[in-house]
Amino acid sequence: MLRNGPVPTITLLTDYGPGTEHVGALHAVLAAGCPGADRIDLTHDVPPGDVAFGALVLARLVPLAPAGVHLAVVDPGVGTSRRALAVRCADGRFIVGPDNGLLAPLCDALNAREAVALTNPEYHRPRVAATFHGRDVFAPVAAHLASGVPLGALGDAVDPAGLTRRRLPAAASDPGRLAASVAGIDRFGNVQLFATPSELNRAFPEGAAVTIASESARLAATVARTFGDVASAQGLVHLDADGHVAVAIRDGNAARILGIVGGDSLVIHASARIG
Amino acid sequence: MLRNGPVPTITLLTDYGPGTEHVGALHAVLAAGCPGADRIDLTHDVPPGDVAFGALVLARLVPLAPAGVHLAVVDPGVGTSRRALAVRCADGRFIVGPDNGLLAPLCDALNAREAVALTNPEYHRPRVAATFHGRDVFAPVAAHLASGVPLGALGDAVDPAGLTRRRLPAAASDPGRLAASVAGIDRFGNVQLFATPSELNRAFPEGAAVTIASESARLAATVARTFGDVASAQGLVHLDADGHVAVAIRDGNAARILGIVGGDSLVIHASARIG
Amino acid sequence: MLRNGPVPTITLLTDYGPGTEHVGALHAVLAAGCPGADRIDLTHDVPPGDVAFGALVLARLVPLAPAGVHLAVVDPGVGTSRRALAVRCADGRFIVGPDNGLLAPLCDALNAREAVALTNPEYHRPRVAATFHGRDVFAPVAAHLASGVPLGALGDAVDPAGLTRRRLPAAASDPGRLAASVAGIDRFGNVQLFATPSELNRAFPEGAAVTIASESARLAATVARTFGDVASAQGLVHLDADGHVAVAIRDGNAARILGIVGGDSLVIHASARIG
Repeated sequence: MLRNGPVPTITLLTDYGPGTEHVGALHAVLAAGCPGADRIDLTHDVPPGDVAFGALVLARLVPLAPAGVHLAVVDPGVGTSRRALAVRCADGRFIVGPDNGLLAPLCDALNAREAVALTNPEYHRPRVAATFHGRDVFAPVAAHLASGVPLGALGDAVDPAGLTRRRLPAAASDPGRLAASVAGIDRFGNVQLFATPSELNRAFPEGAAVTIASESARLAATVARTFGDVASAQGLVHLDADGHVAVAIRDGNAARILGIVGGDSLVIHASARIG
Repeated sequence: MLRNGPVPTITLLTDYGPGTEHVGALHAVLAAGCPGADRIDLTHDVPPGDVAFGALVLARLVPLAPAGVHLAVVDPGVGTSRRALAVRCADGRFIVGPDNGLLAPLCDALNAREAVALTNPEYHRPRVAATFHGRDVFAPVAAHLASGVPLGALGDAVDPAGLTRRRLPAAASDPGRLAASVAGIDRFGNVQLFATPSELNRAFPEGAAVTIASESARLAATVARTFGDVASAQGLVHLDADGHVAVAIRDGNAARILGIVGGDSLVIHASARIG
Repeated sequence: MLRNGPVPTITLLTDYGPGTEHVGALHAVLAAGCPGADRIDLTHDVPPGDVAFGALVLARLVPLAPAGVHLAVVDPGVGTSRRALAVRCADGRFIVGPDNGLLAPLCDALNAREAVALTNPEYHRPRVAATFHGRDVFAPVAAHLASGVPLGALGDAVDPAGLTRRRLPAAASDPGRLAASVAGIDRFGNVQLFATPSELNRAFPEGAAVTIASESARLAATVARTFGDVASAQGLVHLDADGHVAVAIRDGNAARILGIVGGDSLVIHASARIG
């Protein structure tokens, strides 16, 4: 069931940082535990400890990948009492990670059918470090699942409907005004907001001239469909490739101009000059 | 033809940033579309939107890899009218990416034989986002090619000699003076220039004492064969491992000392004290 | 002997920077030379030229991976007279890299049985650049080993007991005081020290209130077992997942607060208020 063509698949998503030794440790443990699997790095660039953004990225990337075992570790509470889980979803995918809100959006979207708390130490590394459950608990469990170990062997069954959920920051949308929190910032300086297409539509028509305000700066922009709709160096508010409202500058870096980082929020309002 | 030993090969080169979710999306789509392929990250560290440097890196890395499908996305014009292409070269390699100058140096070196514009939506993802053709057009096409879909099925044939070309920044070389643009900067602070061995030889003999001038700083250096030819902390001008003129400091960071970033240029001139 | 299940394994560890073109060049050469191998990136985030830390990370990550060929390149002396080696260890693993102290801790732990200097150019790339032995010497050799070329073919036998060794920075531990050098800093700002569990135990009992002093800052902390033992935003001194003494802040960034980078050292002393 895990085999998609010639090999089983294991995807990885963490906040460990791209190309770091923590990521290498996961790959080494997975390769040793499930030789020949196709290991896919979804991202390791989730901001440190940003469970909400990790959950968002996990939910949008896993469905792109072949069905398999999907390991996710953004785990600021490692070593505390948060549960470690493996979840089987309706389409046969297994999701493995900490139960801190990271897994719920994906598991909800894929219809979680069965879940276990990872309480059976037989499937962990012999010595579990208090601060590195990725290497010592989650990766070994993922490798065992990909190798065909049944879910039930990994620990005690828990209610798949009882996963920890986080409330996402809500946007405030009114005609002529949209206030929203920053979900994520990419390398191009594109700023993804916790705001939906309908929240954008309620606030502004396409083509509207708007002003984007951060705590420290302002940026004139147009509500547009894509980069090609504005001139180089011009700001735009658009629906990005993931269906989020996003702020960008064509051929420029909106995050840098606006001086924002993760956790900030933005207010977008209709520019006075267009009434 | 795509199989090099046991598995087909797909290489990836982008400006998405190492280990980011954009890279993960490509891998997920490729793994789903061509299970079992060997996916090779050539680099994702091309500076954002730097098509000229991306083209340079693509042309030097692809020939090192097994013949296969070679996906390249540095695409500041995504969502505009630039063409999306797949090109077959004389040695059986397929090159896939935007026709903005990124592909031409490699395709010229490998003798492009056949090209198509990626106009057949049957081989794209069902919904194509205006800002993420990497995920929705180029990666699905690459996976299909690696799975054996014939090139001609992907869209309309175009003239393989008609790829968009960019003029690379030219160096100015005279006896005692070399002015050149920065092509790329690596993690060690080595600065690769758009300048050739013959341009270096015209300007200086090996062993010459020179001064390297950026807009904000100066660095004394020696024209040398390699790092071992100068003392620790000394500057050197040499031909790097890719055959470019490059500026470096042994056990040091030349880019930081010179205060330069991509797009800058340098002037190297013979130091007065050696006449 | 190199096959762990269906495919041979090649691990990579460098200071080239995650996702850079230098890493891509290694992968391309390895894929061309040993098609179908499972290539595992252990890390490419070793600080540039930091051989001591590279050696530490290599020794702790390789044992997690399947037995295979283990390529390591942190090579500030490339192009000088340092030897290039391939080493066979008692458990069948092959270690390949520069003989500058990088390989010895791992080879000692795994019992090196046989070593050769990589003097046979038949197994290198046809033209070897003076500054990129990773691409032109080490990766081709690693691919040949993984493909079954016997060690002895690669060059002249050398004494496996004669690897270059580096002395690691020593900690100074007394009751109430521990002074140690920084081994590495991760993305979370956790600071790993060159200090052992017994050195920590000699200095402080668990639960002790201490002050951590860098050159520029001070941080109050508790000697604790793990993050969960202190409140959010509190400092701790603990044994990390690799068995090193480490300094951290729960939900915070200790390296940033202490203003330290690699190569610095820290002094931890008992806080006055607890006598």
